[in-house]
Amino acid sequence: MKRVGILTSGGDAPGMNAAIRAVTRSAIYNSLEVIGFRRGYEGLLDGDVVPLSVSSVGGIIHRGGTMLRTARSERFIKPEGVREGLQRLKEYDIDALVVIGGDGSFRGAYDLHKLGFPVVGIPGTIDNDMAGTDCTIGFDTACNTALQCIEKLRDTASSHERLFLVEVMGRNAGFLALEAAVAAGAEHVLIPEVPFDMDALCKKLHYARERGKSHSLIIVAEGVMSASELQSRLKDTGGFDARIIVLGHIQRGGSPSSFDAVLASRLGGGAVDALLKGEFGTMVGRIAGQIVASPIQASWEDKKNLDSDMLALVDILGI
Amino acid sequence: MKRVGILTSGGDAPGMNAAIRAVTRSAIYNSLEVIGFRRGYEGLLDGDVVPLSVSSVGGIIHRGGTMLRTARSERFIKPEGVREGLQRLKEYDIDALVVIGGDGSFRGAYDLHKLGFPVVGIPGTIDNDMAGTDCTIGFDTACNTALQCIEKLRDTASSHERLFLVEVMGRNAGFLALEAAVAAGAEHVLIPEVPFDMDALCKKLHYARERGKSHSLIIVAEGVMSASELQSRLKDTGGFDARIIVLGHIQRGGSPSSFDAVLASRLGGGAVDALLKGEFGTMVGRIAGQIVASPIQASWEDKKNLDSDMLALVDILGI
Amino acid sequence: MKRVGILTSGGDAPGMNAAIRAVTRSAIYNSLEVIGFRRGYEGLLDGDVVPLSVSSVGGIIHRGGTMLRTARSERFIKPEGVREGLQRLKEYDIDALVVIGGDGSFRGAYDLHKLGFPVVGIPGTIDNDMAGTDCTIGFDTACNTALQCIEKLRDTASSHERLFLVEVMGRNAGFLALEAAVAAGAEHVLIPEVPFDMDALCKKLHYARERGKSHSLIIVAEGVMSASELQSRLKDTGGFDARIIVLGHIQRGGSPSSFDAVLASRLGGGAVDALLKGEFGTMVGRIAGQIVASPIQASWEDKKNLDSDMLALVDILGI
Amino acid sequence: MKRVGILTSGGDAPGMNAAIRAVTRSAIYNSLEVIGFRRGYEGLLDGDVVPLSVSSVGGIIHRGGTMLRTARSERFIKPEGVREGLQRLKEYDIDALVVIGGDGSFRGAYDLHKLGFPVVGIPGTIDNDMAGTDCTIGFDTACNTALQCIEKLRDTASSHERLFLVEVMGRNAGFLALEAAVAAGAEHVLIPEVPFDMDALCKKLHYARERGKSHSLIIVAEGVMSASELQSRLKDTGGFDARIIVLGHIQRGGSPSSFDAVLASRLGGGAVDALLKGEFGTMVGRIAGQIVASPIQASWEDKKNLDSDMLALVDILGI
Repeated sequence: MKRVGILTSGGDAPGMNAAIRAVTRSAIYNSLEVIGFRRGYEGLLDGDVVPLSVSSVGGIIHRGGTMLRTARSERFIKPEGVREGLQRLKEYDIDALVVIGGDGSFRGAYDLHKLGFPVVGIPGTIDNDMAGTDCTIGFDTACNTALQCIEKLRDTASSHERLFLVEVMGRNAGFLALEAAVAAGAEHVLIPEVPFDMDALCKKLHYARERGKSHSLIIVAEGVMSASELQSRLKDTGGFDARIIVLGHIQRGGSPSSFDAVLASRLGGGAVDALLKGEFGTMVGRIAGQIVASPIQASWEDKKNLDSDMLALVDILGI
Repeated sequence: MKRVGILTSGGDAPGMNAAIRAVTRSAIYNSLEVIGFRRGYEGLLDGDVVPLSVSSVGGIIHRGGTMLRTARSERFIKPEGVREGLQRLKEYDIDALVVIGGDGSFRGAYDLHKLGFPVVGIPGTIDNDMAGTDCTIGFDTACNTALQCIEKLRDTASSHERLFLVEVMGRNAGFLALEAAVAAGAEHVLIPEVPFDMDALCKKLHYARERGKSHSLIIVAEGVMSASELQSRLKDTGGFDARIIVLGHIQRGGSPSSFDAVLASRLGGGAVDALLKGEFGTMVGRIAGQIVASPIQASWEDKKNLDSDMLALVDILGI
Repeated sequence: MKRVGILTSGGDAPGMNAAIRAVTRSAIYNSLEVIGFRRGYEGLLDGDVVPLSVSSVGGIIHRGGTMLRTARSERFIKPEGVREGLQRLKEYDIDALVVIGGDGSFRGAYDLHKLGFPVVGIPGTIDNDMAGTDCTIGFDTACNTALQCIEKLRDTASSHERLFLVEVMGRNAGFLALEAAVAAGAEHVLIPEVPFDMDALCKKLHYARERGKSHSLIIVAEGVMSASELQSRLKDTGGFDARIIVLGHIQRGGSPSSFDAVLASRLGGGAVDALLKGEFGTMVGRIAGQIVASPIQASWEDKKNLDSDMLALVDILGI
Repeated sequence: MKRVGILTSGGDAPGMNAAIRAVTRSAIYNSLEVIGFRRGYEGLLDGDVVPLSVSSVGGIIHRGGTMLRTARSERFIKPEGVREGLQRLKEYDIDALVVIGGDGSFRGAYDLHKLGFPVVGIPGTIDNDMAGTDCTIGFDTACNTALQCIEKLRDTASSHERLFLVEVMGRNAGFLALEAAVAAGAEHVLIPEVPFDMDALCKKLHYARERGKSHSLIIVAEGVMSASELQSRLKDTGGFDARIIVLGHIQRGGSPSSFDAVLASRLGGGAVDALLKGEFGTMVGRIAGQIVASPIQASWEDKKNLDSDMLALVDILGI
């Protein structure tokens, strides 16, 4: 192996730059060359390349976003797109490809792997909805961003004695919503993994009001419903007057937390190790503190479970 | 003068607690007693009081929101409400009242003043839309909060090469939007003080796109239109596909910045000075570095102008 | 079991308040009463108590430090002190005690346990030097605080092309220094677990200088030597002119990160679970995502190892 | 005028990059070319130049430090150095020079001005010790950084009931120390503008202790003495046991606050305006909200006074 390609794909996540830096420097340390493709698979197909050196990844470890930019590629979903990508990789003399992204990005990498091309994935998404790793890169930073925003809302909520609904990201998973709810000491959390029960929620809110609780925070995962829909339904069903906030793309940006900068550095180093050991078609993850390579398709085929005690905690601690 | 009342009213703003602390300690330093009313004029009418001591305001200087809580009072807008409030102030042996809030809160204070009751106002609102002071308490913190959120969006905007619309608060004024736009290096800003020109905006966006600018940030003050309305109109008129974020109540919370903690401390001390000098019916503000008491009604009757060079700067620096 | 005592002891750590809140609310949820002792074992001996309710722990989840205050107790190290503490616990009708702190605090708890009194420990220290848990409460926040400070230094270091030495806490362990070094992308790290080699360090610094590297950051754990001693030795041995910064107690304060707020909440809930199950003489920790109770003495008797790949990463990524 | 040079000199300050961006883009907007000199006057003498374009200053507005790097130049202090610098400016066809820095940097600019070369200064230093502007670029950010650090110390100070001494920067001036002391609600502040009285300080500390005050913060400006010297003297004179923290270079780094990003943008624009109007030999400052050009030598010849009420506030509010 002489030359490694790298790209970031799908939604950006804090720590992607730290992972790019770690892959690049680990590869160079092991006498490999590194080529970056810009805008994910789009840049691979378009030949939008940039050679990466020790110094070109200097100073990026703390920057949000991704210096290689990212995109979702419609073309790469189709078999002919994948074959064209394989063609490009050969034209650029790339011997292996490192893909940083979520499960959509990994399906593309898996398609390349099935055509015999060496790939290794690094899980980068704030949603944390991937098996094979305890945490994905960006999840911890997004939790901290959500927490900091919610703390600010709490100031106003308690000053005005109000009910606030906070919509957080997470696609079809509730990891981010649940973590933010426990961290922020929210009174209620709605996540896709638990069937939504409007009556139970209204009962809890009425009960809290009777006990003199002057303000409440409800965290709602975008996978359940939008904050504005919940606002309407709370008004209609229970007569509750709530303010809403949609954290949105704020959760995707910012400097990576210490946790994410370290995770990204370790997984970046681990991805190069996996390449050198010939562990192709894998994703590197951190499981119980160890860097482990698992089959890349397990990242979406296996089910990742929420910590079982966390949901109960919201009810117990939000009293 | 022996006993001073204090309340916070209207929307909360970071630094209100620092002002409460400064009023309380300055008053006690000058051998006055201090009584707090909770939930603004509502608490005054309801007799919801709390005596304030040196230690009861310890440790609050950095807390967002207001320990006295706040509310908008429908009752106090009416003459009979004001008379009832005056009655309560006499029942509690209050000799003068300090009101921390925006222009709505000051109209209530002015009504008391016209009935002969000694009042002094401290301008506390993130909107900065009050004459008689270069800055209101909370404005600087809100600018920093908006800036930090926008910086995070910039990460994603530049990674995905997108157009983002950010709606910031400010009621009918553009101070917050304009400050945030210059601070964040936004490409465009829409404020109520400048007539909105859809064609001009679209032209600028097209021109930027032609020049290869991969992403743009537009800051829109809530007083112009909502971000979602602007999103629709940009789509309809110019075919632009924009993401939106509404910063909302996040801008109201958080620990006060150094600037706001100092401003609140100085204005709190200044309010007690004004009371001791018999400068009733005034608002204390900071003008060119000095603490100055002006007639309270000037705070909404006079026009506060935007810095003339700031608007031009957005165009010049956002190229 | 009807009444539970709780205290924080030793050095304070961010998240201790979140743990106090979680223990209190979980206990009350399970129909137990909760009594707090102020200033650690000192307050136990002095009978400095405060009953804790659902609302008295409201709003503390994000505050740094500990609402119960903390202290190191000389008296409680001696057998007669422990017996006196036991006496007090009986006087207050305490059926079990939850101790939040580091290994020194746990030795005291173990002494009570050996006298037959039910205790459960919650590991709270920024040093992370305790076995039986992947992370102690406060470690993640301290890493983030160190990272944020080091990032600011990096601005000046790169603007002035300088060598900076940063001394971080951690007592006799290098967890905090190593994590901060990887997170910050530091060029070198000195930790107590690795014998210090002055010649090797000077060689690396000379080599970096020859390669044109304009600035470098060295992280030194307080357990190795002080930054000022290292500064002198670098000057004497290699002629290097370095600036120093000692992060000091800044690392101990601040709002807990999302990770620490969640960890503290889970361990607080887990400590009450352990009490209810009769798992006395234990420490609750988080191992591979699960909340686990281990013998409390294992927290200092067992050896906790650094992640083996982290040290190598500093060399590989700091090139 | 066709081509403008720009350099940053002396200690770096947050917002210098925002000023570089504003000068560059304003100049280009006015059809001027912009050349940057790296490492201050050193780079001018060495011909270390970089052409600046609209895009080369993109994305730097929020970065700490200075992309042009900075240095103190021994050579440029001497007359022959200044003449050599003038020679270089002519070789590079530079028609005017913008210097961003403190008073040392401005003395160099003044020397060029006296030789007939057009210069304009932009005040950039965290010390705020320059007349002709209410605030220097970087001061507000440094105040916020100091405040955030001190807040963290306060957590530990109050948890452990301790006395903390915090040494802040400011050279021979007390602006930063005084602002931080009021913002942080410190109990005492020592600044160079006020003669130090050890007995008075000890009396205050004893009095606070008698009143049951469990912890105190003393802010000491580096221009008075070092924190460790004060620590020794407090021990020797009054028997006080204090912990110390030296904020050091942390105060120089970080992203500029909103205030500083706006100030830097306005002064950068103002500097180009001054050049176009032929106002050479000046420094642009912000006075009472207006951008004003004053003779550059006034920045160190005139005396800048502390706000008279601030010192009294520390005593009144720190009770």
